[in-house]
Amino acid sequence: MSKKIPYRTYLSEEQMPKYWYNLRADMKEQHDPYVNPGTMKPIQYEDLLPVFCEELVKQEMNTTERYIAIPEEVREFYKTYRPSPLIRAYNLEKELKTPAKIYYKFEGNNTSGSHKLNSAVAQVYYAKMQGITSLTTETGAGQWGTALSMAAAYFNMPLTVFMVKVSAEQKPYRKAIMETFGAKVIPSPSDTTDSGKAILKADPKTGGSLGCAISEAVEQAVKTPNCRYVLGSVLDQVLLHQAIMGSEAKIAMELLDEYPDVVIGCIGGGSNFGGIISEYMADKLNGRKCPRFIAVEPASCPSLTRGKYAYDFCDTGKITPLAKMYTLGSGFKPSPIHAGGLRYHGDAPIVCNLAAEGLIEARAYYQNECFEAARLFLSTEGFLPAPETSHAIKAVIDLAKEAAPGSVITFLYSGHGLLDLASYEAYLKGGLTNFELPQEDIDTALKDCPEI
Amino acid sequence: MSKKIPYRTYLSEEQMPKYWYNLRADMKEQHDPYVNPGTMKPIQYEDLLPVFCEELVKQEMNTTERYIAIPEEVREFYKTYRPSPLIRAYNLEKELKTPAKIYYKFEGNNTSGSHKLNSAVAQVYYAKMQGITSLTTETGAGQWGTALSMAAAYFNMPLTVFMVKVSAEQKPYRKAIMETFGAKVIPSPSDTTDSGKAILKADPKTGGSLGCAISEAVEQAVKTPNCRYVLGSVLDQVLLHQAIMGSEAKIAMELLDEYPDVVIGCIGGGSNFGGIISEYMADKLNGRKCPRFIAVEPASCPSLTRGKYAYDFCDTGKITPLAKMYTLGSGFKPSPIHAGGLRYHGDAPIVCNLAAEGLIEARAYYQNECFEAARLFLSTEGFLPAPETSHAIKAVIDLAKEAAPGSVITFLYSGHGLLDLASYEAYLKGGLTNFELPQEDIDTALKDCPEI
Repeated sequence: MSKKIPYRTYLSEEQMPKYWYNLRADMKEQHDPYVNPGTMKPIQYEDLLPVFCEELVKQEMNTTERYIAIPEEVREFYKTYRPSPLIRAYNLEKELKTPAKIYYKFEGNNTSGSHKLNSAVAQVYYAKMQGITSLTTETGAGQWGTALSMAAAYFNMPLTVFMVKVSAEQKPYRKAIMETFGAKVIPSPSDTTDSGKAILKADPKTGGSLGCAISEAVEQAVKTPNCRYVLGSVLDQVLLHQAIMGSEAKIAMELLDEYPDVVIGCIGGGSNFGGIISEYMADKLNGRKCPRFIAVEPASCPSLTRGKYAYDFCDTGKITPLAKMYTLGSGFKPSPIHAGGLRYHGDAPIVCNLAAEGLIEARAYYQNECFEAARLFLSTEGFLPAPETSHAIKAVIDLAKEAAPGSVITFLYSGHGLLDLASYEAYLKGGLTNFELPQEDIDTALKDCPEI
Repeated sequence: MSKKIPYRTYLSEEQMPKYWYNLRADMKEQHDPYVNPGTMKPIQYEDLLPVFCEELVKQEMNTTERYIAIPEEVREFYKTYRPSPLIRAYNLEKELKTPAKIYYKFEGNNTSGSHKLNSAVAQVYYAKMQGITSLTTETGAGQWGTALSMAAAYFNMPLTVFMVKVSAEQKPYRKAIMETFGAKVIPSPSDTTDSGKAILKADPKTGGSLGCAISEAVEQAVKTPNCRYVLGSVLDQVLLHQAIMGSEAKIAMELLDEYPDVVIGCIGGGSNFGGIISEYMADKLNGRKCPRFIAVEPASCPSLTRGKYAYDFCDTGKITPLAKMYTLGSGFKPSPIHAGGLRYHGDAPIVCNLAAEGLIEARAYYQNECFEAARLFLSTEGFLPAPETSHAIKAVIDLAKEAAPGSVITFLYSGHGLLDLASYEAYLKGGLTNFELPQEDIDTALKDCPEI
């Protein structure tokens, strides 16, 4: 009889990865370059320096180095909440009567509540090293803003978070925790920036949008001396930092003598999915035994399953570079689903490239079935998933029901839902809509995609 | 040079305690017995059976068995979130420039958010085994109600939680999470019980109180066939279950070759303090090397530091048994501080007995200094403490500042504050009062203590 696998497996500090695995070094074809919205030519190293700090621009451009050393100070911070546990979902398996083994990498164990912290700490650290004296960012659902506030507090770095106004009103606890960490939270649009003022003038009652918050954050970063803007998803550098989740998961699975048949993560911008697949995708790219990869998105914002693979703006304000990605159109207005972190019109170029090559699969689900899956997970595994994470769980449950005996499903539990309880309340009251997205809406939004 | 101690130490599943340590077996004198409010005579085994389930009554009365086996099913549940980590507070030490080593046993890693789950799961399990078909309880701050809802969901046990009305209104997320777990949450006072109706008739606008919620929960349990009432603190059985925290902490500290000079916990009813001291107190009771023990309470509800050691009712409604304890009077109306879980007029009889014997010390702090300590902890250690837990942290910081080189401070981090963010918001706005408790108020409330 084989040894009983524990509920939770932790690596020791010595077993923790000392490098971020850089997936691009193993990709046969790199994703098409970002394009400067002014010149419509590929972005150069110098173009990015006023916005991002130097070391991060280097990482953004680094497609050749397979392993990039994690700085000592970042590794020390990681040790305060990493390695995250790899958990065997015994109780969920039992409930589903599945013959499959289910594992999840659990990123809900830090105070900010999600995997976003893995990149936040790296970005704040590099800014600090460069002598940057303040940072700006935007946040919609709030996970990224919270994570960055936490990292900024640790490194004593002043931070301004432009938070989508309607989100700041709906999620007062998210705003409160960022402020408790010492961050300045400004509901967006605001009168502190020109772009904010312009939007307010056009529509004084607007609840704001992520695109608008990005515009304000970038504007303040560029106008403030020695200030930089930081972003929590989509970028290559973010996926690089998030690769630590996949590396840890692989080491832990090896300790248990397990190898997944399928790896699953939800997808909004791609930071968590890109992170969990990392070293398993390396197996695939190098022709070794490998799992299936499934990205799960909301049916109301189905960029991978129904989007067009084309160059598009990364923001609705059209001030950021353009990226080649599966997109619903930068002007796409997502339905107000509760998984706010999955409401992005595109996806990380790295992930889109893998999708275009047929190396990953994608699925889309409605929000009610995801909340139902989350509640089953809560009553069996005891963890309350973020609405975003519930999408991955729904796919896991579907796959587990039809799984072959002994097959292994691994997924990323990207964050907890303790600050999203208003969503659960609304779900319990039966008031959530399963938004159908008319093809017409996609077609209309895509008309704005420039020809490149 | 000695081996570097990791940030976090986890026991393996094999190293986890298989027994609850029963402190009473080592106490030279037992605390005075509970007294029946009807007969004013010591409570007998039979008196408790209509209220609590059988196995728990046995545990309540068991003063001789040093180790009580944890049932297999409870140990399986424990494995889903235990052992909790023992964390070395390197970053806090650095910030304080203390020569002391600080460790904390971290109980904030389960979805219910606190140590309360340790007893909740045991109580639900024994009820299930006895064939009980529903449970009732009350909750004020919400930690206990959340923990019990989580345990009840796992064992598929219907649960009604009477939640102090003002708390249900102030903490909608607490109510939402209990409902997501499937519990029925009734703001108290309600019109579902006679006691609730009577209180509403007398004062239709009342925000309720813990005493009133207890009355409603007990009434429903007694009137409903095959239903029992469960309680999350004060009782001997609760401290027994919570002893697992002290046992785990001691095993982990031994693995690190460490022994504390002082053990600290906050105290409301005594469930977390009684739990963390457990096996270290055994050392003291058996004349071995031992630490100091410090219980930390709010200055606005100072039962241990300013209360009278006397028999008193455990509830304001005077329907529960009387206990010999340090009390501020059962009619004492605590100031509306944010550490709702520390607003109890008495303390666990076991803890009071130890205090009366001079075996533990007590300190009291104001809420603003506790929130300040919590914020320092958040920015260094990265964890947002519950307002209750912040009291322990304040004491730790004070002790660390005056500590001798190499001394070791261990404390219990009883729960996280993610569902208490409204408190932090109020603190940041500078709106919190440091309530002074006039001696007169205590004297008046104590007049109600019966002579026994």
